[in-house]
Amino acid sequence: MTQFVRNAWYVAAWSTEIDEELRRFTLLNEHVVMFRKSDGSIAALEDRCPHRLLPLSKGKRIGDTVQCGYHGLTFDGTTGMCTRVPGQTNLPKSAYVLSYPIEERHGIVWIWMGDPDKADRTKVFDMPEFTAPGWKVHHGDALHLQSNYLNVAENLVDPAHISFVHPTTLGSSASENVPVHVQTEGEAIVAWRWIRDAEPVGFFKGFGGFTGNVDRWHYYYLYTPSTAVIDFGSAPVEMQIGEDERDRGVRIFALHFVTPVTKDYTIDRWMHIRNSALDDPTAEETMDRMFRIAFAEDKEILEAVQKEEERPAKRRPIRIAIDKGPLVYRKRINELLELERTEDLASHPSPAFVYHD
Amino acid sequence: MTQFVRNAWYVAAWSTEIDEELRRFTLLNEHVVMFRKSDGSIAALEDRCPHRLLPLSKGKRIGDTVQCGYHGLTFDGTTGMCTRVPGQTNLPKSAYVLSYPIEERHGIVWIWMGDPDKADRTKVFDMPEFTAPGWKVHHGDALHLQSNYLNVAENLVDPAHISFVHPTTLGSSASENVPVHVQTEGEAIVAWRWIRDAEPVGFFKGFGGFTGNVDRWHYYYLYTPSTAVIDFGSAPVEMQIGEDERDRGVRIFALHFVTPVTKDYTIDRWMHIRNSALDDPTAEETMDRMFRIAFAEDKEILEAVQKEEERPAKRRPIRIAIDKGPLVYRKRINELLELERTEDLASHPSPAFVYHD
Amino acid sequence: MTQFVRNAWYVAAWSTEIDEELRRFTLLNEHVVMFRKSDGSIAALEDRCPHRLLPLSKGKRIGDTVQCGYHGLTFDGTTGMCTRVPGQTNLPKSAYVLSYPIEERHGIVWIWMGDPDKADRTKVFDMPEFTAPGWKVHHGDALHLQSNYLNVAENLVDPAHISFVHPTTLGSSASENVPVHVQTEGEAIVAWRWIRDAEPVGFFKGFGGFTGNVDRWHYYYLYTPSTAVIDFGSAPVEMQIGEDERDRGVRIFALHFVTPVTKDYTIDRWMHIRNSALDDPTAEETMDRMFRIAFAEDKEILEAVQKEEERPAKRRPIRIAIDKGPLVYRKRINELLELERTEDLASHPSPAFVYHD
Repeated sequence: MTQFVRNAWYVAAWSTEIDEELRRFTLLNEHVVMFRKSDGSIAALEDRCPHRLLPLSKGKRIGDTVQCGYHGLTFDGTTGMCTRVPGQTNLPKSAYVLSYPIEERHGIVWIWMGDPDKADRTKVFDMPEFTAPGWKVHHGDALHLQSNYLNVAENLVDPAHISFVHPTTLGSSASENVPVHVQTEGEAIVAWRWIRDAEPVGFFKGFGGFTGNVDRWHYYYLYTPSTAVIDFGSAPVEMQIGEDERDRGVRIFALHFVTPVTKDYTIDRWMHIRNSALDDPTAEETMDRMFRIAFAEDKEILEAVQKEEERPAKRRPIRIAIDKGPLVYRKRINELLELERTEDLASHPSPAFVYHD
Repeated sequence: MTQFVRNAWYVAAWSTEIDEELRRFTLLNEHVVMFRKSDGSIAALEDRCPHRLLPLSKGKRIGDTVQCGYHGLTFDGTTGMCTRVPGQTNLPKSAYVLSYPIEERHGIVWIWMGDPDKADRTKVFDMPEFTAPGWKVHHGDALHLQSNYLNVAENLVDPAHISFVHPTTLGSSASENVPVHVQTEGEAIVAWRWIRDAEPVGFFKGFGGFTGNVDRWHYYYLYTPSTAVIDFGSAPVEMQIGEDERDRGVRIFALHFVTPVTKDYTIDRWMHIRNSALDDPTAEETMDRMFRIAFAEDKEILEAVQKEEERPAKRRPIRIAIDKGPLVYRKRINELLELERTEDLASHPSPAFVYHD
Repeated sequence: MTQFVRNAWYVAAWSTEIDEELRRFTLLNEHVVMFRKSDGSIAALEDRCPHRLLPLSKGKRIGDTVQCGYHGLTFDGTTGMCTRVPGQTNLPKSAYVLSYPIEERHGIVWIWMGDPDKADRTKVFDMPEFTAPGWKVHHGDALHLQSNYLNVAENLVDPAHISFVHPTTLGSSASENVPVHVQTEGEAIVAWRWIRDAEPVGFFKGFGGFTGNVDRWHYYYLYTPSTAVIDFGSAPVEMQIGEDERDRGVRIFALHFVTPVTKDYTIDRWMHIRNSALDDPTAEETMDRMFRIAFAEDKEILEAVQKEEERPAKRRPIRIAIDKGPLVYRKRINELLELERTEDLASHPSPAFVYHD
């Protein structure tokens, strides 16, 4: 069975997806009902009445509580505690639903599906370009993939695939054999490469309007469990841009918030931040169009890979040089899973751990 | 694996569903082929040739026998015994299909899926109002639900849900907190409540034409394994109707014949018997329309519950005061299942039970 | 789990199904990518990159090699060996895909899914009438069945079913009780019967133009694992045709190449060879039309049988006199499977077989 890292912030939705209605979301194979309370903050409750298991999202919102649609048990939108059981006056202690910590920032709704005591709001992903002058933030869309989230995230620390998967937009044959650098920077795994003095790829013909040869970079930052920032851009060769001077070129951050829905279904919410054509809405449309082409290509590959992974195999997949980023990523995820297992054991020790002196 | 009570009469069909053609029905996860024999009685055979397993319903009726559509083996519609094997003259003893006892009464076809020796026709559900003067019988329809039959039947001994599930037809908020009485009467579990001096619910605005406040009752009789009679009605407050005087009011029996098809698919054939507006066909239409609204609401709830029950759960559902009827019902079903297991052991003792003195 | 006989030639496709494009075929529950190389011969490779498992059929043909669509690993169309890994110069030994032996003959593409060293091309099915004068070969079509291949093949050594399944084309009630002869002839199991002096069946009213009574024969040759030749025909009674004089009558060979796709999905590619109406294209159309009627009838029966076989059963199917051909066939298949298991053990002995003296 697929396990998910639970003690982590995941993107549950764009802010625009949540309003006064009861809406069901599925994350980490669990159903969550979300709605905006009267103060505008977001309630996120386990979407299953503890009585006859009806999803609360099939019920009715009453003020900041949710009334189950079967027998009227009512739950507080903030704490999840039952506030009413029709036909009786006492409220059983076991009458509650889980309530999940939520953090809303920059139009993005983050949820914590693990131990609420560990939910540290300072750990929610952020970057200065969300609010800094000279940058334009644009929310994109949500890409739904029939694929395990690890495959989706791994693809976002893998610069090598773009020459083959995205030949008309993000890559070209000029980069096929350019080696990839990989290192870790704190919580991020970074994989990058520069392609110097080459024809601009399709994306930068459409956006940036480059005609002569350019220096082009791709930096993939992957934060566990599954947030990716792809820093890519181009600058005319004549500019002789240095590796740390990327702001001088046309620079784009493509952000991917990868949310595991079930073991074989993932949503990748994507957006971008750019330092050029700030007030040009057609530039945004051009970028979106090209991203959609590229992400549809990813989707086709990743869903085909998923299907093959579910089939019996007689031999282990081979690993090659360009796999370094993905391998470090998988190792980190496994360490986090192992850590959570160990912590669970420590907080709920089984009898085998109880010693009598 | 879901077990079904086998030694019981279940409704297989309305009489109108069965004619001279071979028709397949699925009950208790078994396929049965049914047709009317030349004398008008109903044949009900195991729908699987014992040779190459082709459903007999894919074959051909020849007089009161059924010929398999693959190699022509032919089976008697009454006994199920093989009467012909093309290409040979001897008939193997193992060449037979099961034949199920059938009882047809009041336009309803009952089938016995268990030990034929135990099929007692006097135990088929009946009630005097089917034929008594002053009552009008109306066959309704069949509601198909993607739900285990226990959830469907349990819902029919649960008066508490109607305030929340059927607010426009059978219930209203006036009854949300009115306690439910539960007792057993022989084979029936009875759950009931009276709501005195309240506005009529939608149903009795549409049927009965009540305008002032009424006394309203709901009696739910659930007979194992899965036949329910809901006795409900209203009378003007001024009538000061007594609990045993329900015939004085507008009284309706809603009958539900719940048939397990598979573990997660159930058919609820419903009909009603009334003591008012006997010769008014539009009254019948009005009632049917309101029942359809209510049963569609049940279907949505029960199918959502079914889906949740199939998901992994970390804690046991809680039980509350209004659950008494359903809990008694589940206990009875489990006792019947246990009884059948024990009888099976007694009639087919395993070697462990054979002693040599 | 269904096992398949691997050391055998199966029909993968008609020749017309394969061209320069990468096309995926599924056989014995494995995916194979096929295409015509520049010399016109056919490449057949395991359709799964050993790196990230993407099907090679999602990639790109480059000359006689296939480039994976994810990271560009490239494989030789003849040997399956990796010829390029972008981003590195060394080629790991484990970087290869399986390459399957192919034999193309009479417009039919045969594939060997087992041990390549055992692929003996002289064992590919052939018969002189493919090229002999006086015979006309006509490729038919491919019948897709949701059924295990053993049921499909067994149906092709079972003359008894045609009276019941194909009453308007290949059979009639005249033959219902005519016994079936069965014997083995080398690799073939032969089941046959003659129906003498009977009205012509639908097929021979439509093709052959018989009006009076005929002598009719059906010889079913089934070659393991799953190639069938049905030799059937008719001659006027007055001709007094002998059993070994079938060329004197209107004689047709219906060929069936049965390919297991998965355990419950099978393709039956069918064609026919005739000794009459050689230059009459409408005769061909008439035959095709009647075959399509008959094969649709088989499909309905075989798919219904498959569904029943997948259901739990309380007793073993019975066997009757006409089952002899199918029983011999199943026995042969089981012997072949057992032989392959034994050979696997011999060539890959487990540690338990290693003795130290």
